[in-house]
Amino acid sequence: MRKFINKPQDVARETVEGFLAVNGHLFEAVPGTLAVRRRHLREKTAIVSGGGSGHEPVWLEYVGDGFADAVCQGDVFAAPDPHSIALAARAVDRGRGILFLYGNYAGDRLNFDLAAELLADEGHRVRTVRVADDVAAAPPDRPGDRRGIAGGFFVAKAAGAAAEAGLSLDEVADVAERVAEGTRSMGVASGAGTVPGTGEPTFLLPEGECEIGMGMHGEAGVRRAALTTADDTVDEMLELVLADRPVPPGHPVCVLVNGLGATTRAELLIVARRTRHGLTERGLTIHATHLGNYATSQEMHGFSLTVCAMSPELLPYHDAPARAPFLTGVNAA
Amino acid sequence: MRKFINKPQDVARETVEGFLAVNGHLFEAVPGTLAVRRRHLREKTAIVSGGGSGHEPVWLEYVGDGFADAVCQGDVFAAPDPHSIALAARAVDRGRGILFLYGNYAGDRLNFDLAAELLADEGHRVRTVRVADDVAAAPPDRPGDRRGIAGGFFVAKAAGAAAEAGLSLDEVADVAERVAEGTRSMGVASGAGTVPGTGEPTFLLPEGECEIGMGMHGEAGVRRAALTTADDTVDEMLELVLADRPVPPGHPVCVLVNGLGATTRAELLIVARRTRHGLTERGLTIHATHLGNYATSQEMHGFSLTVCAMSPELLPYHDAPARAPFLTGVNAA
Repeated sequence: MRKFINKPQDVARETVEGFLAVNGHLFEAVPGTLAVRRRHLREKTAIVSGGGSGHEPVWLEYVGDGFADAVCQGDVFAAPDPHSIALAARAVDRGRGILFLYGNYAGDRLNFDLAAELLADEGHRVRTVRVADDVAAAPPDRPGDRRGIAGGFFVAKAAGAAAEAGLSLDEVADVAERVAEGTRSMGVASGAGTVPGTGEPTFLLPEGECEIGMGMHGEAGVRRAALTTADDTVDEMLELVLADRPVPPGHPVCVLVNGLGATTRAELLIVARRTRHGLTERGLTIHATHLGNYATSQEMHGFSLTVCAMSPELLPYHDAPARAPFLTGVNAA
Repeated sequence: MRKFINKPQDVARETVEGFLAVNGHLFEAVPGTLAVRRRHLREKTAIVSGGGSGHEPVWLEYVGDGFADAVCQGDVFAAPDPHSIALAARAVDRGRGILFLYGNYAGDRLNFDLAAELLADEGHRVRTVRVADDVAAAPPDRPGDRRGIAGGFFVAKAAGAAAEAGLSLDEVADVAERVAEGTRSMGVASGAGTVPGTGEPTFLLPEGECEIGMGMHGEAGVRRAALTTADDTVDEMLELVLADRPVPPGHPVCVLVNGLGATTRAELLIVARRTRHGLTERGLTIHATHLGNYATSQEMHGFSLTVCAMSPELLPYHDAPARAPFLTGVNAA
């Protein structure tokens, strides 16, 4: 293993400690958990996100102005436990209710649902929106079996802005659901990341091959093939993503070209070049392009493409200013 | 090679095309070059940066409000040619003079100096500041032999802010020199990146070993050793960095924990945790911590630490708002 860590079993905790060391003027720990919360809460719908560690900046750094109020990490690739989630939620609910927003994985679903029950018993109002944007994970008629990958960014961004704008819990959940409905992603990998606990790669892929549709934990994709050009790879992925949820010409779309860990920024730019070409050729209006490591899987070599078709009345939630640590670079003080 | 590219010989050009595809509302190509420039120029001291491709976001994305007016890329790991540099400079000089700001490498030095001569002959005023922050590259009595690595960020940020504030060419160069004087960095790698042109790693390092002081192109460092804990690695690097340019207790420092390509954000956070601990223990005042892939070497696995001791009158140049593509994440339109 080539990682710069201390003890493998301490990675999740020390990652959170590092986050707080850098961003401690804005965020604080929720005692007894791997959750962090905003120090200064406004009277608004609370948003709590979370999931397994190891996908940073997801979900740890999806917190701040215009994003979540608290995020609750589990151990590497493991769901956070229900009590930690409930503690994080209690720490940020100001009486306007709590939106649980996370990726559609069995462990997360189970534990967030248990936390929701605990909180409901105490009189908290909880709504849940799950992101399931990975078109490679299951066919269109089984959307509930689809995983959440990098497209969660658009849902988190819009929900965060809606909450900041003073919308009620039901209204924020509605915005999140509508953005999630228009969001589709697909990943591709040419090399695996390594899990700190085991030192083993998450999958085995011979050099010169790639897997289209690879999941964030190395779950099997739709097709294993010889690594071809970036342009051909993008063309195939874009076709699959847009076939899953057709977007009419002229409709605005937001795009995310996401690095999975070890992909160079030059590759992402080359991918973005072809992606924008493919979208423009289809007559779509590109409203915004995001590019960077927004959701990773250790040092996996690969990328994901997300196309988010947003109706015009939702675009202001995408465009609203926001300040999550991974987006700003600088962290003063 | 696991990269998502098209033809290896097209990587540098297509990277620039990708940058312009994503950021074309703000920047445009300088025809006949691998340089990009801001579309809208203000009456101010012009800044031109550049160097070999393959270190993205350096230098390609170090352009924009509060950064350079033009950046000129060479091929992968190769200096840009003098004529391209001169074309980029001519495209952005508004009569207030041009600052050349780049890393101290022989090829870049030669070609930027030749460009400066061409421009001087035409009546342009040119000043040059080279960044040479890598303490591992040469002993303190040979600062001219030191390479420029991630610490260039602080110099570029401050110079950009000084130029935006309306300072003259000599004043901007003075700010850049003073920030460069206070900036020291060191890198460490546990695994090499691969150059697209050759498909070969930039160096060979057995699994389980690391090289402290490794350069951005795989240049030999100060010590090859068994990979130990992140904390021990940080302690050793911080000691070397601070010994090279002692900073008195109470003095403000800015810190950059920089990923070299394939390093996970969790590792960077774990490194930041110890770095802040080490600086605080020495009585230094941490003014700001930056964390992310600010200067990379393909998918090298490793990180660099930069400590920038800034006198209080320089801090506003660090703190001034800026908008380079790699710092903002979102690129509207």
